[in-house]
Amino acid sequence: MRYSPLLTDLYQLTMLAGYLEEGIADTPAVFDLFFRHNPFQGGYAVFAGLDPALSYLEGLRFAEDDLEYLQGLGLFRPAFIDFLRSFRFTGRITAMPEGTAVFANEPLLTIEAPLAQAQLVETALLNIINFQTLVATKGARIVHAAAGGTVLEFGLRRAQGPDGGVSEARAAYVGGVRSTSNVLAGKLFGIPVKGTHAHSWIMAFPDELTAFRKYAEVFPDNCVLLVDTYDTLQSGIPNALTVARELREQGHELVGVRIDSGDLAYLSRESRRAFDEAGFPDVKIVASNELDEYVIESMRSEGGRVDIYGVGTRLATCAGEGGGALGGVYKLVRIGDRPRLKVTSDIAKATLPDRKRLLRAVAPDGSFIQDVICLDAEEVLPGDTVYDPTNPLQYVTIPREARLVELRSTVMAEGVRTAPSPPLDDLADRTADQLARLPRGCLRFINPHRYKVSVSRRLNELRLQLMNEVQRGYRR
Amino acid sequence: MRYSPLLTDLYQLTMLAGYLEEGIADTPAVFDLFFRHNPFQGGYAVFAGLDPALSYLEGLRFAEDDLEYLQGLGLFRPAFIDFLRSFRFTGRITAMPEGTAVFANEPLLTIEAPLAQAQLVETALLNIINFQTLVATKGARIVHAAAGGTVLEFGLRRAQGPDGGVSEARAAYVGGVRSTSNVLAGKLFGIPVKGTHAHSWIMAFPDELTAFRKYAEVFPDNCVLLVDTYDTLQSGIPNALTVARELREQGHELVGVRIDSGDLAYLSRESRRAFDEAGFPDVKIVASNELDEYVIESMRSEGGRVDIYGVGTRLATCAGEGGGALGGVYKLVRIGDRPRLKVTSDIAKATLPDRKRLLRAVAPDGSFIQDVICLDAEEVLPGDTVYDPTNPLQYVTIPREARLVELRSTVMAEGVRTAPSPPLDDLADRTADQLARLPRGCLRFINPHRYKVSVSRRLNELRLQLMNEVQRGYRR
Repeated sequence: MRYSPLLTDLYQLTMLAGYLEEGIADTPAVFDLFFRHNPFQGGYAVFAGLDPALSYLEGLRFAEDDLEYLQGLGLFRPAFIDFLRSFRFTGRITAMPEGTAVFANEPLLTIEAPLAQAQLVETALLNIINFQTLVATKGARIVHAAAGGTVLEFGLRRAQGPDGGVSEARAAYVGGVRSTSNVLAGKLFGIPVKGTHAHSWIMAFPDELTAFRKYAEVFPDNCVLLVDTYDTLQSGIPNALTVARELREQGHELVGVRIDSGDLAYLSRESRRAFDEAGFPDVKIVASNELDEYVIESMRSEGGRVDIYGVGTRLATCAGEGGGALGGVYKLVRIGDRPRLKVTSDIAKATLPDRKRLLRAVAPDGSFIQDVICLDAEEVLPGDTVYDPTNPLQYVTIPREARLVELRSTVMAEGVRTAPSPPLDDLADRTADQLARLPRGCLRFINPHRYKVSVSRRLNELRLQLMNEVQRGYRR
Repeated sequence: MRYSPLLTDLYQLTMLAGYLEEGIADTPAVFDLFFRHNPFQGGYAVFAGLDPALSYLEGLRFAEDDLEYLQGLGLFRPAFIDFLRSFRFTGRITAMPEGTAVFANEPLLTIEAPLAQAQLVETALLNIINFQTLVATKGARIVHAAAGGTVLEFGLRRAQGPDGGVSEARAAYVGGVRSTSNVLAGKLFGIPVKGTHAHSWIMAFPDELTAFRKYAEVFPDNCVLLVDTYDTLQSGIPNALTVARELREQGHELVGVRIDSGDLAYLSRESRRAFDEAGFPDVKIVASNELDEYVIESMRSEGGRVDIYGVGTRLATCAGEGGGALGGVYKLVRIGDRPRLKVTSDIAKATLPDRKRLLRAVAPDGSFIQDVICLDAEEVLPGDTVYDPTNPLQYVTIPREARLVELRSTVMAEGVRTAPSPPLDDLADRTADQLARLPRGCLRFINPHRYKVSVSRRLNELRLQLMNEVQRGYRR
């Protein structure tokens, strides 16, 4: 995937021009990318988008027609256009692998680069990481709800533009949704593609049974029949049973039926019963129609017999309570040798200053206890006291039996990746492993357990000290 | 913009392979693209996406590496791959211009092509039209709420992937949002780009006043200052006033201030008062932070003094009640010489069969009265009785003084556009004109007036007749 260097907000460029004129374009800067609330009012997020983000950074070049366009805006001096002509990203990126379970306020990416470089890339990095992490999280939630049932992604038609559909399929895969209907995503990412036919196939023939027979003729070993064009139980299932018998006589087996409307829990039970009674216990029941984690969980809890869930719109758009967008932000935490803090009237929105590390306290059985954010040079040990970032007076002790694991590492140095792109399957495997180690309550959809993310003693002190300085500053 | 021919669901390709084997790939087919509910529980939608959709259709070609990928799936015979190698879209598209006010159940696009061609393009057409129409509608609603205030789009960082942000900026423009922060959208579509600086500019300098002065130094005639980094009223506005005075001494004027947090209605009133009292009545107040039509309307109703509204996330994602996605569908309405109907248990979801025309009854003063969908060859006149598509027993009479205007025309014939792409400004102008002619109640956000869309006598009869046939068919 090629990203344009113009994939940015104009203000990044006006700020760049300003930094250049003020002589601070090359001042070393450190930015953190993080979000303030877990998406979907959930207990966690699944980090995703790192690999496309690194591709963007590595490929960042202004072509002559980009520069001509910018020149034509009448905003910039020729020296700035020349500066852009030789622009490259030469910074360092610290991040955790995709598929890591992450939480509000944790630095996902840290960008260390000359101020101008770090500033320019803000918008594209947010765009990529926000959307990928949002969809990977939604995918993981849906896979969790399916409880071992297969999940198939087919949201392309309702996705936000062509690329919305393609990058969505990638992110959903990282979250655990390991097949898609999107052929382009299949080609680009090697994701298994799935699908059989739509209502229009049925309607292209004089009647349903003829349409089913014709489809079975063409795809005798890969035949899933859509049974709800006219009436699922009166017409679709009896006709599908006829075809299942005919296929068997010819030495093939019907793979499944798909139900795309109506009361899916009820229809899946009735369909299951019909196929079981007729001697077809292996025919799969596929269900689709505005499915998401809540609908799937509710269908399962009332005894629905669905084997494969097709999810489209609600995965592609991530709309709904606490969804739609991941509110990732990108904040300056250090410039030159000065740690920086953005304060607001709300301490929960004040940033965590300076270059930091992110540690996870892991129990002897491998389960995750809590995370700790500390300063880069600070030593944090089991038994240490750590603080609530939204309330500096609240503290806890890291259990003495815990092991502290560093979650992030340098993934790009001097503008070059430190390792090749990992296989997508490794990322999806990591997601599954991480979620299995979370406290179970974190996976709940309603009022989930709040996983603890604390700040270290020295980070807490630095933050309070900077808050005081800022307040003294503007009260003068 | 180049669209891949693989931008489709796998089942389109398996159906194509089936049509080919059954010898019906070339049977003439007619499909309608329409939606069943106005987005955002609103009173209308703004049709958009036609021009990108036509670009997609004109450019549809399978490259050798696309064919290799498909071959490698092991699903398709070589004859089918050869068929794809020479695949072109040669059909006819009937549509209304972008910027037309449209309503649930109206055929937006009608696709007449050999069955295989019309089938393949379903997913991409839905993807493009669904998202563009959704965003254009959201944009129009936000512009309406702003009531003459300027609206600036800056949703790229929260948009669904890079292209999500780019195509969103185009659609928002069609809806009436005539500037963007997205530089790539500016280059691609000629949309005016806007923006000044972010919190990081402020934080890159030792204090706010220094940061403001430096920005004014670099952009003395295009200076909008972000005033909420520390505290809007205690620090931001007093410092901005200092800079406004200094600029004036040097012969320049401060353009504006931007407030990005806190109680925007209150802060905008206080800021307005401070600038007015200090003799700067022309300084503009820009507000941003999770704005949408509801927030803007509420701020205005309590006397907010915002001149320019920056809208991001909620325009880019269209999330929220009745949003997230436009549920556009693509249904076969005729194959060969047979009109087709998809029935369901719910008459509101039954399709409108056959090739149709879409008429708008316009009053002598130019205002829109109602729309009528009729059969292609049918004559409909003022004074005729027309029927509710969701209840065939309800009917109304088209007012005798109305003029019946044909809303759609042939925009592509034999796979080639019949006219060049219109300037984006014409589309945005049409949106504004169309909305001004709608019954005022249609523009309301809460419980809007339901604009009447009726079906003609003969269309109503055909539909009821086909419903009967279908029911007889599967009850046999």
